[in-house]
Amino acid sequence: MLGISRQIDAASGAGDIRRCIMEYVYSFRDGIDDRLLMGNKGANLVSMTKLGFPVPPGFIITIKAYERWRETGSIPDGAIEKAMVELEKEMGKKLGEGLEVSVRSSGATSMPGMMDTLLNLGDMDEVKVAVRQIFGSWDNPRAVEYRRLNRISSQLGTAAIVQAMVYGNRDDDSGTGVIFTRNPATGETGLYGEYLVNAQGEDIVSGSRTPEPIDTLSMAMPKVYSELEAMAARLERHYCEMQDIEFTIESGRLYLLQTRSGKRTGNAAVRIAVEMIDEGLITGEEAIMRVSVDELRSLLHKQIQEPVTQRPLAKGLNAAPGAASGVVVFDAPEAVVQSRKGKAAILVRPETSPDDIQGIAAAAGVLTQKGGLTSHAAVVTRAMGKPCICGAEGIDIDLRKKTVHIDGLEIKEGDVVTIDGTTGLVYQGELPLQESTITTYLKDLMSVADGFKRLGVRANADTPDMIEQSLAFGAEGIGLCRTERMFNAPERLFAIREFILADNQEERFRAVERLRELQTMDFKELFKVLNGAPIIIRLLDLPLHEFLPPEKDVTDPKMRQRIEELQEINPMLGHRGVRVAVTTPEIYQMQIDAIETALAEVPANVSVMVPQVITSQEARAVKRMLKNSHLKFGVMMETVRACMRAGRLAEVVDFFSFGTNDLTQAVYSFSREDAEKRFLSTYLSHGILRDNPFEFLDVKGVGRLMETAIFWGRRVKQDIEIGVCGEQAGEPRSITYLHHIGVDYVSCSPFRVPIAKLVAAKAAIRARVYHTKGDGHERAQQPAVAR
Amino acid sequence: MLGISRQIDAASGAGDIRRCIMEYVYSFRDGIDDRLLMGNKGANLVSMTKLGFPVPPGFIITIKAYERWRETGSIPDGAIEKAMVELEKEMGKKLGEGLEVSVRSSGATSMPGMMDTLLNLGDMDEVKVAVRQIFGSWDNPRAVEYRRLNRISSQLGTAAIVQAMVYGNRDDDSGTGVIFTRNPATGETGLYGEYLVNAQGEDIVSGSRTPEPIDTLSMAMPKVYSELEAMAARLERHYCEMQDIEFTIESGRLYLLQTRSGKRTGNAAVRIAVEMIDEGLITGEEAIMRVSVDELRSLLHKQIQEPVTQRPLAKGLNAAPGAASGVVVFDAPEAVVQSRKGKAAILVRPETSPDDIQGIAAAAGVLTQKGGLTSHAAVVTRAMGKPCICGAEGIDIDLRKKTVHIDGLEIKEGDVVTIDGTTGLVYQGELPLQESTITTYLKDLMSVADGFKRLGVRANADTPDMIEQSLAFGAEGIGLCRTERMFNAPERLFAIREFILADNQEERFRAVERLRELQTMDFKELFKVLNGAPIIIRLLDLPLHEFLPPEKDVTDPKMRQRIEELQEINPMLGHRGVRVAVTTPEIYQMQIDAIETALAEVPANVSVMVPQVITSQEARAVKRMLKNSHLKFGVMMETVRACMRAGRLAEVVDFFSFGTNDLTQAVYSFSREDAEKRFLSTYLSHGILRDNPFEFLDVKGVGRLMETAIFWGRRVKQDIEIGVCGEQAGEPRSITYLHHIGVDYVSCSPFRVPIAKLVAAKAAIRARVYHTKGDGHERAQQPAVAR
Repeated sequence: MLGISRQIDAASGAGDIRRCIMEYVYSFRDGIDDRLLMGNKGANLVSMTKLGFPVPPGFIITIKAYERWRETGSIPDGAIEKAMVELEKEMGKKLGEGLEVSVRSSGATSMPGMMDTLLNLGDMDEVKVAVRQIFGSWDNPRAVEYRRLNRISSQLGTAAIVQAMVYGNRDDDSGTGVIFTRNPATGETGLYGEYLVNAQGEDIVSGSRTPEPIDTLSMAMPKVYSELEAMAARLERHYCEMQDIEFTIESGRLYLLQTRSGKRTGNAAVRIAVEMIDEGLITGEEAIMRVSVDELRSLLHKQIQEPVTQRPLAKGLNAAPGAASGVVVFDAPEAVVQSRKGKAAILVRPETSPDDIQGIAAAAGVLTQKGGLTSHAAVVTRAMGKPCICGAEGIDIDLRKKTVHIDGLEIKEGDVVTIDGTTGLVYQGELPLQESTITTYLKDLMSVADGFKRLGVRANADTPDMIEQSLAFGAEGIGLCRTERMFNAPERLFAIREFILADNQEERFRAVERLRELQTMDFKELFKVLNGAPIIIRLLDLPLHEFLPPEKDVTDPKMRQRIEELQEINPMLGHRGVRVAVTTPEIYQMQIDAIETALAEVPANVSVMVPQVITSQEARAVKRMLKNSHLKFGVMMETVRACMRAGRLAEVVDFFSFGTNDLTQAVYSFSREDAEKRFLSTYLSHGILRDNPFEFLDVKGVGRLMETAIFWGRRVKQDIEIGVCGEQAGEPRSITYLHHIGVDYVSCSPFRVPIAKLVAAKAAIRARVYHTKGDGHERAQQPAVAR
Repeated sequence: MLGISRQIDAASGAGDIRRCIMEYVYSFRDGIDDRLLMGNKGANLVSMTKLGFPVPPGFIITIKAYERWRETGSIPDGAIEKAMVELEKEMGKKLGEGLEVSVRSSGATSMPGMMDTLLNLGDMDEVKVAVRQIFGSWDNPRAVEYRRLNRISSQLGTAAIVQAMVYGNRDDDSGTGVIFTRNPATGETGLYGEYLVNAQGEDIVSGSRTPEPIDTLSMAMPKVYSELEAMAARLERHYCEMQDIEFTIESGRLYLLQTRSGKRTGNAAVRIAVEMIDEGLITGEEAIMRVSVDELRSLLHKQIQEPVTQRPLAKGLNAAPGAASGVVVFDAPEAVVQSRKGKAAILVRPETSPDDIQGIAAAAGVLTQKGGLTSHAAVVTRAMGKPCICGAEGIDIDLRKKTVHIDGLEIKEGDVVTIDGTTGLVYQGELPLQESTITTYLKDLMSVADGFKRLGVRANADTPDMIEQSLAFGAEGIGLCRTERMFNAPERLFAIREFILADNQEERFRAVERLRELQTMDFKELFKVLNGAPIIIRLLDLPLHEFLPPEKDVTDPKMRQRIEELQEINPMLGHRGVRVAVTTPEIYQMQIDAIETALAEVPANVSVMVPQVITSQEARAVKRMLKNSHLKFGVMMETVRACMRAGRLAEVVDFFSFGTNDLTQAVYSFSREDAEKRFLSTYLSHGILRDNPFEFLDVKGVGRLMETAIFWGRRVKQDIEIGVCGEQAGEPRSITYLHHIGVDYVSCSPFRVPIAKLVAAKAAIRARVYHTKGDGHERAQQPAVAR
């Protein structure tokens, strides 16, 4: 999405000027490279024609003409006829007398397969009817739904392209195909694609015949293949982007019908971006701007846990990577039904069509019997970042009985399967999935991002394992290490309960001593794996009663009584965090001692953080417990009062870390669990709130408060470090905002670290571009990948 | 306190100049009227001497000398001797040869009885020792404690007064006494006081002999009495304040030893202030500044008739002022039963909960074993204006036996006790009480206050009775009328439960219809008693589950299920207020319809207010329910987000009303009840918080947020009305602050209305004085009443 809207912004300024001189119809030779007028496909045909590529001649009835048609119902007849006369002249044939034309749509943004195409028209009236049909198809339900899903404006409109037909089905020296200049699944360099001998393009798209891999063309028609290879390379260099090219061979002569930026998997997007930098095709900034968050997210998708011992049932094309388990469904509506029930569904179809869009969106993955890597199912799922296997010819679907036979096994609707879109393998039942790992290309891209971004990216991790994983995912440190878990293993739970139930100072002391030993060990384990990365340890946040068992499970009268005493009406706003340290300093003192003891044995870059602070006096009280002056000391900014008193707090601490979960609850007076259970969905569906503030940081309320706190914090202590460790710290839109308000780092879940880095780099680059407008960074007139 | 600090401020400017020319010792004749140098008593003696009153001669060793003594340990010997020589000359007698002197302290502020006094000194060395003793006594433990309690600075220091002795015990034509220029208990004009024939002042103070009323002096020594009467009148006119005068008669000759502003009861303070305006002695501003909040508070509640001779049984926290006698009851229903029988009941509970509301309403007073000044019992009783003692830990309640053990005594249900919520003391049996009424003098003082104050003062009232009471106490309208109570009578509770449990739209509709009729009647009753005063009705704030019985009391499975469904983890932050209106609009629509219907029959000045708002979209949704354009529409500002979005909200509403209770909870992330039960007392005792933010508005957190909201609200809608209806709106320090940040009105419990008016007038006057410095308003050099 970012890519598109940025380029629309960039193009529209120029477009406004051009619109003043534009007309209704342009030949490919006279057209201009403006996709807001020519449409996307039209602009490409114009520029290919001008670059001298063998494009069958034709003309474009512009978006301006479409707009007039929408307003008045009339199309510019005279202009079309005039253009047709010129086309006839160029072709040396009359319409209907050896010359046929196709009429296609050319929207300002690509909507593959959503609109109509008419072929083999040989009469002027047919052409005029076809143009009206194309214009009308902009508002067909499929296209409307596609635009809604992809947030494309309905105002953009479409042009119509009239183009001389060339025939891939003329003879056995003819054919048609689709190639990518690189592998759209992996990003590998070299032509990738398919072709069919003696066939039209529609034969490939519909999946009615199974095409052959493109390299077989080098044997069948070596000269054509070399031409194609050279043209592909030239087009890629021209657009500085991987191209998706449609071609037709008519009796040994090569024609290019279309070129556009090719859709690709996340893995491919990353590899292509990185390699294009090396090839000198694009800059680092462009690489960062081109890889979308959704692409990155898709490649951070889950995989089947290695080693996989189970025998696969079937194999198809690995059309979209990632793995998913779910119940088998045989039509799109059923996928929606299951998804509403909260069930993951695998949509199994002979092939998919644009009518299935909603079902694909609702499904966890797609499996088709027919169709290749460029079939509808493949393209759509890749864009959505969902696993997909296409062309699994070994499966036999019976749509009426709602069964599929695979490898002698009958699978019914509701049975569970697992698909692996990375390998193309289908398995029976639910296989354990694991999070993805980081490729070299991703690492390289992250290094590029690191070079641009200003915002630090850390991870939330509580265990040595999670710390290792965080660092592997590129985290620059641990921004939030919660210590609650350390109390939850049985031995510790026993000790903390002893502490809570202690009758006298001595019992209390003994319990604390035990905890101190255990926590010291814990901290040493954590420090060992850090490898120099900084870690921020949050002292205990939970109220003590959370460590006691549920009252109903307790018979011991003393424990029952204590549980009753500790019960709270609003635990979220109760006796927790630093409040426990004020009334019972022993636990924080124990935690701090344990950190300091561990640190003496295992050196590390450690900060200590105090939760739930409302006044600098609390921070001072805890700070007095520190003995080691090397420990950095900070507070969670998760109460409104802490934000209002940021100046005072800054006098006491080295850093602030905003806890946007609790802060949002306090700003809204919403208990998150209660809100989500009771009323938040109504708020969203009635449009009273635009977004769930627990997912997207609420800029106007919570954000403004944070800005105030940052202002006062920095005013008092210029170099105070400012972090954010709520859940929204991993959400792209929120990260962009946090970059802009001058936060030093975000801390999110390990798996979100690469996304956070990419978003942070994009934000930094975009800010720079805005500040140095017209420096030529926005050179591409065609859209980047449209997500 | 206010009076003092104001005058210190006023005096210190002048004092700085004078200090440049001051010396260590001054005779009464040569002294200057500066109590920061001469001390309070010294300055009075100087001015009395200069006015020609018969003051025994003497001199003052100044506070400057005290400061030198404190630094160096030396006192200005030569100067004292020089002054003594002059005194001997004036008296015509040598020290020790017919001349004896007293040495007394003269602090910059009065600390009656706290420091030493030495009499009958006849030797220069004794005098010097005495002066050192006086200086040293500034730091005796009694004085230090007194200053701490009364927040008097230790830096002020004391002067020492050396004065020729006169002897009230010389013969039967001698005597000594103390008079007030008006009755300090009632404020009645005319001399009031006591004297003893043939005695020294110490004989009166020590209580060793019982003095006679002053009017008997008119028989015994008519000439002296007339002199005294004339002098008293002259002193009062001079100081424009009721005087407390010490005198001695030595062989028929009258001497004045001291004069100062006299302490008085609240009733007297009010009457004196009002009458002195009439007498032309003081201005209205001065009258307002002189009557203290505590004085006013003391006269607004029933009191135990003085003197109280009976020993109290127990002491707790003085949670809500006033006194009550009644039969002891141990549960809320029994309080209702007794009240129906016309018997006053004292509800004695370990602590109270919202379930006890009706019992508290029915009781004459409440006594709890647990809970602090902001516990449920305390808050509710204060709002109701009923006496309450909380946290009386010395009592031992047995709810099963229905007994309470206090101080070794067993008190059973039905036994009579008297509680004094002003002092926190519990007495056995029925003690005679005296009523507080709104006296003519108080009404007059309130009219004076109304003339100065800018801040409007309204009351919180939910019933016709409370509205009438509010108006009687001077409220200018009802700033908060809660509608919760309307659902709590049995018939309504039944209907609202029907609504909550309804299975279909029809059942729901029927339940709402029943509620509509009942509420329409309620509103008509309210409107009838308003007499033109405005009323702000708050729509339902409670979550629906509050209207269902406790789960343990329910057997009906449907109701049990619904109760479970509606349970919340943090009800304070849950599905309540406008959030219920978003998901279930019927109830707000019903309430608005009922208000509009009632209004059509009984015209009134009505505003509708929406609680718990976080976004203008909620306000818009409720505003659409209004049919009557005459209704003013506003929102409670009680979430942080509402404050952050005040500009947007101002577009939708006519007024804001800050709910500072909930707002404080949100800003602190404190659940009030949990905080007060668990940790707030530790926060206060450790000095981590200076004040309980639920009693005193937190200026630095909550206040700043309110200021921001007011700024943006007014920026968008200049004439938006801004009120405050939290509990702090009745607390004097908070009211002063609210005046300064430009709030239009506060709304507090009816009983606090006169106090709020007084404070608001003081704030307005003080602001004016600061702005027109030196306009002569601060003419009194002696302190106003030191409270």
